[in-house]
Amino acid sequence: MRALLAFRPEIAPALGALTDELLHAPNSLTHAERELIAARVSHLNDCTFCRESHAAIAVCHLGGREELVAAAVADPERAPISEKLRALLALAGRVQQGGGAVGDGDVARARSEGVTDREIHDTVLIAAAFCMFNRYVDGLAAWTPTDPEMYRQRARLTAEHGYAAGPPR
Amino acid sequence: MRALLAFRPEIAPALGALTDELLHAPNSLTHAERELIAARVSHLNDCTFCRESHAAIAVCHLGGREELVAAAVADPERAPISEKLRALLALAGRVQQGGGAVGDGDVARARSEGVTDREIHDTVLIAAAFCMFNRYVDGLAAWTPTDPEMYRQRARLTAEHGYAAGPPR
Repeated sequence: MRALLAFRPEIAPALGALTDELLHAPNSLTHAERELIAARVSHLNDCTFCRESHAAIAVCHLGGREELVAAAVADPERAPISEKLRALLALAGRVQQGGGAVGDGDVARARSEGVTDREIHDTVLIAAAFCMFNRYVDGLAAWTPTDPEMYRQRARLTAEHGYAAGPPR
Repeated sequence: MRALLAFRPEIAPALGALTDELLHAPNSLTHAERELIAARVSHLNDCTFCRESHAAIAVCHLGGREELVAAAVADPERAPISEKLRALLALAGRVQQGGGAVGDGDVARARSEGVTDREIHDTVLIAAAFCMFNRYVDGLAAWTPTDPEMYRQRARLTAEHGYAAGPPR
C-alpha cells in the first residue's frame, strides 16, 4: 500500500483517515468484528495482501486465536462465532457481490441479532471500502509478502496505533 | 450520498477529500476524462445515481455534449473519443471486474497511447473508488432521483467547485 501511495502522497491522508475511522476509531462494533469484515471481503475478492493483513490484525485483537480467525474468514456460516458477527459477515458478503445484491432479508437478519442502523451503515461501508482497496492493490499488482511473520509484525503495530499514520506496508 | 453520510459525519471529510483529489484537483487527466471513468464504472456496477451524477458533471466539462458522454459511458470502444480515453475506460472496466482481471495487455495498451504511470495509478484508483461508492449507495438503498434536471443542476455546482464541500446530493 505504501509503495502505491508513493505515486500520490496527496491521497494518502484521506485513505488513512477513512480506514482509521472505519476500523480503529471507537465504535459499537469491536475491532475484531471490523477487521474480520475487512478480511472476509478481501478473501472473497481474492486479495491475498489485504486478507492476510487484516486477518493478522484481527488475531491481535483476539489474543492470538489464529484458527478462529481463519475459520471466520473462510466460512463464517460454520465458524464458532456469534450470531451477530455471522450476520455482519453475511451482509458484507452481499456488498462484495454488488450494492444491488443486498436484500431486505440480509438487513432483517442483522437487525434480528441486535445490529443497529449505524452498525449496518458501517458494515456496508467497510465492505465497500475493501472492494476499493482490494482492486487498488491487485489492479496495480503490488508486491505481496509470503512470510506470515511479516504480517504478524505489522499487525501488532496497526492493532495498537491504528491507520492514521499509514496503511499496512 | 449526503443522507447516507448523515449517519457518520466523521467520515464525510475523508470521502470528500479523496473524491476531490481524484476527480477535481489539478491532474494531467482532464476533468472530463476522470468523470467519464467514474460514470463508466458506475454504469458497469448498475449504480444509476453515480452514473447519472458523474455523466452530468462530464457533460458540464464538455460544454453540453450529452450524446458524446452517453456513448462513452455505454460503449467506449465504439464512441467517438480519443484512443487515450478509450484505453483508460478499458482499464477502468477491468478494475471493475476485479483487481486480478487487470492484465499486462491493458496496461501496455494505455502506455502505447501515451498514458503515464501516474495516470495509470489514478485511473485504477478512481475505478476502485467507484466500486466502493456504488456499493455504498446501492447497498444502503439510497434514494435515486429520476428527474435529469436534478442531476444537471447539482453537476454545474460540482463541476465548478469540486467535491471538498460535499459529494453529489
